[in-house]
Amino acid sequence: MAGKRKIINDPVFGFLSVPNEFLFDLLQHPYVQRLNRIRQLGLSFFVYPGAMHSRFLHSLGAMHLMQEAVAVLRLKGIDISHNEGNAAAAAILLHDIGHGPFSHVLEHTLVSGISHEEISLLMMEKINSDMQGRLTEAIRIFRDEYPRRFLHQMISSQLDVDRLDYLCRDSFFCGVNEGTVAEARILKMLNVVDDRLVVESKGIYSIEKFLVARRLMYWQVYLHKTSVAAEQMLQKILARAKHLASEGKDLFCSPALHYFLYNNITAEHFSHSDKALRQYALLDDTDILSAIKVWADADDHVLGLLCRAFTNRRLFKVRMLEKPATEEDILTLKSNYIKTLHLTADEADSLYACHSSVTNTYSAKDDSIDILYPDGTIRDIADASDMLNLQVLTKRVEKHYLFYYKI
Amino acid sequence: MAGKRKIINDPVFGFLSVPNEFLFDLLQHPYVQRLNRIRQLGLSFFVYPGAMHSRFLHSLGAMHLMQEAVAVLRLKGIDISHNEGNAAAAAILLHDIGHGPFSHVLEHTLVSGISHEEISLLMMEKINSDMQGRLTEAIRIFRDEYPRRFLHQMISSQLDVDRLDYLCRDSFFCGVNEGTVAEARILKMLNVVDDRLVVESKGIYSIEKFLVARRLMYWQVYLHKTSVAAEQMLQKILARAKHLASEGKDLFCSPALHYFLYNNITAEHFSHSDKALRQYALLDDTDILSAIKVWADADDHVLGLLCRAFTNRRLFKVRMLEKPATEEDILTLKSNYIKTLHLTADEADSLYACHSSVTNTYSAKDDSIDILYPDGTIRDIADASDMLNLQVLTKRVEKHYLFYYKI
Amino acid sequence: MAGKRKIINDPVFGFLSVPNEFLFDLLQHPYVQRLNRIRQLGLSFFVYPGAMHSRFLHSLGAMHLMQEAVAVLRLKGIDISHNEGNAAAAAILLHDIGHGPFSHVLEHTLVSGISHEEISLLMMEKINSDMQGRLTEAIRIFRDEYPRRFLHQMISSQLDVDRLDYLCRDSFFCGVNEGTVAEARILKMLNVVDDRLVVESKGIYSIEKFLVARRLMYWQVYLHKTSVAAEQMLQKILARAKHLASEGKDLFCSPALHYFLYNNITAEHFSHSDKALRQYALLDDTDILSAIKVWADADDHVLGLLCRAFTNRRLFKVRMLEKPATEEDILTLKSNYIKTLHLTADEADSLYACHSSVTNTYSAKDDSIDILYPDGTIRDIADASDMLNLQVLTKRVEKHYLFYYKI
Amino acid sequence: MAGKRKIINDPVFGFLSVPNEFLFDLLQHPYVQRLNRIRQLGLSFFVYPGAMHSRFLHSLGAMHLMQEAVAVLRLKGIDISHNEGNAAAAAILLHDIGHGPFSHVLEHTLVSGISHEEISLLMMEKINSDMQGRLTEAIRIFRDEYPRRFLHQMISSQLDVDRLDYLCRDSFFCGVNEGTVAEARILKMLNVVDDRLVVESKGIYSIEKFLVARRLMYWQVYLHKTSVAAEQMLQKILARAKHLASEGKDLFCSPALHYFLYNNITAEHFSHSDKALRQYALLDDTDILSAIKVWADADDHVLGLLCRAFTNRRLFKVRMLEKPATEEDILTLKSNYIKTLHLTADEADSLYACHSSVTNTYSAKDDSIDILYPDGTIRDIADASDMLNLQVLTKRVEKHYLFYYKI
Repeated sequence: MAGKRKIINDPVFGFLSVPNEFLFDLLQHPYVQRLNRIRQLGLSFFVYPGAMHSRFLHSLGAMHLMQEAVAVLRLKGIDISHNEGNAAAAAILLHDIGHGPFSHVLEHTLVSGISHEEISLLMMEKINSDMQGRLTEAIRIFRDEYPRRFLHQMISSQLDVDRLDYLCRDSFFCGVNEGTVAEARILKMLNVVDDRLVVESKGIYSIEKFLVARRLMYWQVYLHKTSVAAEQMLQKILARAKHLASEGKDLFCSPALHYFLYNNITAEHFSHSDKALRQYALLDDTDILSAIKVWADADDHVLGLLCRAFTNRRLFKVRMLEKPATEEDILTLKSNYIKTLHLTADEADSLYACHSSVTNTYSAKDDSIDILYPDGTIRDIADASDMLNLQVLTKRVEKHYLFYYKI
Repeated sequence: MAGKRKIINDPVFGFLSVPNEFLFDLLQHPYVQRLNRIRQLGLSFFVYPGAMHSRFLHSLGAMHLMQEAVAVLRLKGIDISHNEGNAAAAAILLHDIGHGPFSHVLEHTLVSGISHEEISLLMMEKINSDMQGRLTEAIRIFRDEYPRRFLHQMISSQLDVDRLDYLCRDSFFCGVNEGTVAEARILKMLNVVDDRLVVESKGIYSIEKFLVARRLMYWQVYLHKTSVAAEQMLQKILARAKHLASEGKDLFCSPALHYFLYNNITAEHFSHSDKALRQYALLDDTDILSAIKVWADADDHVLGLLCRAFTNRRLFKVRMLEKPATEEDILTLKSNYIKTLHLTADEADSLYACHSSVTNTYSAKDDSIDILYPDGTIRDIADASDMLNLQVLTKRVEKHYLFYYKI
Repeated sequence: MAGKRKIINDPVFGFLSVPNEFLFDLLQHPYVQRLNRIRQLGLSFFVYPGAMHSRFLHSLGAMHLMQEAVAVLRLKGIDISHNEGNAAAAAILLHDIGHGPFSHVLEHTLVSGISHEEISLLMMEKINSDMQGRLTEAIRIFRDEYPRRFLHQMISSQLDVDRLDYLCRDSFFCGVNEGTVAEARILKMLNVVDDRLVVESKGIYSIEKFLVARRLMYWQVYLHKTSVAAEQMLQKILARAKHLASEGKDLFCSPALHYFLYNNITAEHFSHSDKALRQYALLDDTDILSAIKVWADADDHVLGLLCRAFTNRRLFKVRMLEKPATEEDILTLKSNYIKTLHLTADEADSLYACHSSVTNTYSAKDDSIDILYPDGTIRDIADASDMLNLQVLTKRVEKHYLFYYKI
Repeated sequence: MAGKRKIINDPVFGFLSVPNEFLFDLLQHPYVQRLNRIRQLGLSFFVYPGAMHSRFLHSLGAMHLMQEAVAVLRLKGIDISHNEGNAAAAAILLHDIGHGPFSHVLEHTLVSGISHEEISLLMMEKINSDMQGRLTEAIRIFRDEYPRRFLHQMISSQLDVDRLDYLCRDSFFCGVNEGTVAEARILKMLNVVDDRLVVESKGIYSIEKFLVARRLMYWQVYLHKTSVAAEQMLQKILARAKHLASEGKDLFCSPALHYFLYNNITAEHFSHSDKALRQYALLDDTDILSAIKVWADADDHVLGLLCRAFTNRRLFKVRMLEKPATEEDILTLKSNYIKTLHLTADEADSLYACHSSVTNTYSAKDDSIDILYPDGTIRDIADASDMLNLQVLTKRVEKHYLFYYKI
């Protein structure tokens, strides 16, 4: 239906099109619209004030790249049916649907024993039942249960459209141009051999640069120490709030946040009834941020202090360490808090955090990135690149921090 | 102090620098940090999903342009002291400080009889007292009470750095490249004659394009009918909530929102005590959006219906009219709501809105844009442009809409 | 044939594709390759040093936009056959084929009585015979003899892909961002009604901006007074060289340049034999520029002086006048040259030029730009725009200059 | 003098300013203006048709970056005098002054025993004498004879403004966005310790990306096999022409080209008289390209064939080899040419070329890139990077090609 064809302006890729009614209806689902209220980069805006973009736009962008990738493969003679194209587009549109507000923090505090990936699947199944089973093929691709594996690889592998979009998009909104990858060029180099996604060898330098850009984005943006400081602080805030809730203290919060704060919600709750999922779907960044603002006036000394600092951007300070913080480092900090701020030892634990950030550029255990040569041979990028060999690529880099509240 | 010199990544202008401790301290003030939680473009993200950028970043960007403008003028021999430069930078950083969440909507519902400009001034004075009077000169420039008038013109005139920043920035985040203006070129053409800001005649085509771009942004972004539909809907929601509050109904809301919902706050409250300002300073987008999400389950039929629709992006539909909607148009709508949804006439009034958008490109009553010729003569752009004469520039364009809830 | 499918990197649009063997073969024709050696903007590099781009790249870019336009129209249900698509692409690829080096100068000096448009047609016919008539349909479209007129309009009208490309491209390479037009958006708004190209009314502001950007590019780039000074100087150089040639003086030049310098080549030569066309096809920027460099050492005092100045960028100075230069202005100049440089009156005429630049934004006599409203009505942009009415759009603007050699 | 301050539009960096009369006068020197007629990327336009930009613009861009770098260092308290700043700017403006047309080809054919770097120095000395010694300090910096070594490092080291500009610029004009480096960010990270240029450790990922981008540009642009094919072909053309010249055959060419074609010009000629330098300074791309076009009709069968192919872009084909071409590979080719085209063995040698391209990313023998840590320690990037260790960085990569004329 022509009336439902839709073009959406995107500052990153220009125009995103929603090419048919099926995808348009999917976009209108409340679970998808909810992503409008969840920031792609959580608390990174404290460092990169432009990074306010939503998971909704990322999902749309990834869907756009999927459509482009499918078009490229079709031009190269790979037969992808209309339904397969739609299913792949739907799968990528929904790949992040289960993210909660400030996901990584949330998974350590408000819910336990269930990951956002598992929640994504629960949500897809709910949408599928709302849409009379029209998502079944998309879910099979998402779960890697569809026979044509390259479709899954485009959604989730070392070189999927998810990563292509988020590197372009996050670097764009952060203003970190170095993180940009040549997404158009990489897409043009894609091909499929024996149901495996491959990159033609002309694209090898673009892949190298993609891996380097990804690593740069990790250290410069995703694991930026000030962002991590903010995350650690948020984690301490939510933990403290949950502790107070468990003691029956009254805290301002939205009903959805109340559900997760005053109960210990685990994977079991999600599997036994649909209440947990319904409440989860009501939760977004605004619930957390507006509550914290109110908690700045909390009776609890520690919660108030943390929330005032968080709201006014007086974040945890950071000390970089050669090794994880020692008992002694911590004791010195704690005793100072106890003395100066008149806290108990337990309360003082809310004012600092030990944390190690880890990354490797290329994970050997995931699907490899396969390079296709003109003579038909295929080699892993770690083998094909004369610059980035496996040892370099899979090197595990770890950084240790001690975050602490500055009195 | 070197340690406090700060560089902030901006996707629009590259790097923004906070050149000294005075401006850095100002940036840390909670009133300024609060702008991080207020979107520059309110509800435009419903149309342009990239438009999530904050008023904080806009203020920083405008301050950057002010620093550039001052540097250009100094190179041309205009003497601007260090203090004047700082004061001008502070004034533009704070020019929008009084904006509330979804300002224009708010000014029609939660507060009355006081504009965000007046609140800006109250806030500046509060910050000034927090900072021991270091903002006095900035406030004088802001109020146009400083003898060197061109400093005020750079902050507030037809061609101020506020407009230069927001046109560049809003078009950037919306992905509407046509709205971009050649800010660097325009800045390079600025000069001062007899304390008046002028543009050298080589820049005349850039000014023409600036005016055309501005008009384009008005119709394509700021007054986009779908954004306006969302705003009208939000206005109806807040009006309904306020009505219910006046009847003593209990509604979920943050304390700050509660203050404005359950009281009729006017200019008098702001002038008689500082409570109104303190509460106002606690209010931001998250209070409004999280409350509306909760109200989707409200007992009140009308409030629930509007909030569910708003949250899930089923916005008011729009009918464009040649003239403002007639009594008859409205009666037809209302009687249908009354019949189909079993509403009272008063309740039905929440489900539609008549609205006219008006704009003119160039306002004769504000400061003119003065063009300086090599021979020293100065002419108003409306006179200097062979394309855009006064008649074209000041033409008032009006569009009439009827927004309505689609059953 | 897959092997001949080709993708070309373009800094402006990203990737240009040559989608099939027919267009690929066309691209390889020596007449098309020659455009690689002719700069799109002639002597503008004296003002905008980035403006070195070739007519070849412009032609490819316009062909790319044509493919995009055809794809948009097909999505809207306009039936355009494979052959028609190819013919339209070929026609736009060749639309500028007849341009010589520094075309406008050349047409006043080296050839007479024949325009580059006429030469384009001669060249197309030659290529057509080289390609066994495969260009016949393209030529019919180019000449507006094909029944479906909108195809011709996309090649040559107020809003053709030629203009869309050159505005984007020239502003890009000059670094004049203000000249950019939203080519992607405009293309998406195209439609066809009764065989006429129309723009959907949502695109009206983009069209306004397109017209303003075009006007800006005229005055800021195409008719920039320093570029025009260089052109006037080149015209004087070639006229002087031709005069010396007519006197039998020996001047260094390539055989092709020799042909046009030592003969008076007119339209007749082109129609009577193919020698003129063959020689013309051998002429490009390098012939002119390398000859002028050598002529800097010419025996002829005037030619040497002009060529040294031109090569080392000591261009004619310019005086802007309210009206065309008077007899008196000129006499003063001339007598000074005669006295100071010991020249004859004739020789002195080589050292100055009177010139008037004229432009109007929108030409009533060409095809209008038609705006299509949702209710099916169509209005001319001059009528539809509330800003740019016919009087503004068709206003003829004229500027008068006196260019002169500065001793 | 204000009148001589000049701003030049640059599509890459926006505006380039020539801040004073000294630099302005330098820019006007015929040797500098000549760079307008020499393409930065020689024959790369055969692959990347946008790559028409001149060495003039590159030199201006590098001068711009130098000014930015100096401003950054001054803000950090490094004392750089006005004269030093000017000298550094002049030195980088002139760093490439000695390049001839298609430099690398030229150095193998038209001149011998002297590099373009040596010619640069000769030219600088000539300009210095034209400018009454005002370039003396610049030349000392250029030759690394100035005591403050970091000034030389900014002009010529692993991380000089030359490379920063050409990577940004070449990738921009080629449309290879992946080659862009974060020049603004890198400049902001520069510092000086003990007269050595260092990069602050926050910039480490930008440096890694700079090195990867550089490598990418080498293989994707500078050593692109089709560009190299064109260069090899040009080399064969010039060698053949020189051979014919040595036999007294008459070939069309400009006087300057004649000088180098009909004489064996070596370093001695340059040192014994200034004629060689004067002729060299008259030579640019147009001499070569216009001559080749004429030679397409040469009596000599081989020269004609090569020049027709070159002019019409029927370049050498390429075979990639694991090892350098064997005697046998070559014999097969040659005998085919001899038989089919009726050539002598010597003539057949003009129709193919064996070539190996070599690159390493980081040269241990040049200045290292030094990273400065907050605690004051300094480490080489090869040591500091956890990804790019010395072994990876200095790895020598070699590719072998056999280029041949396709009959």
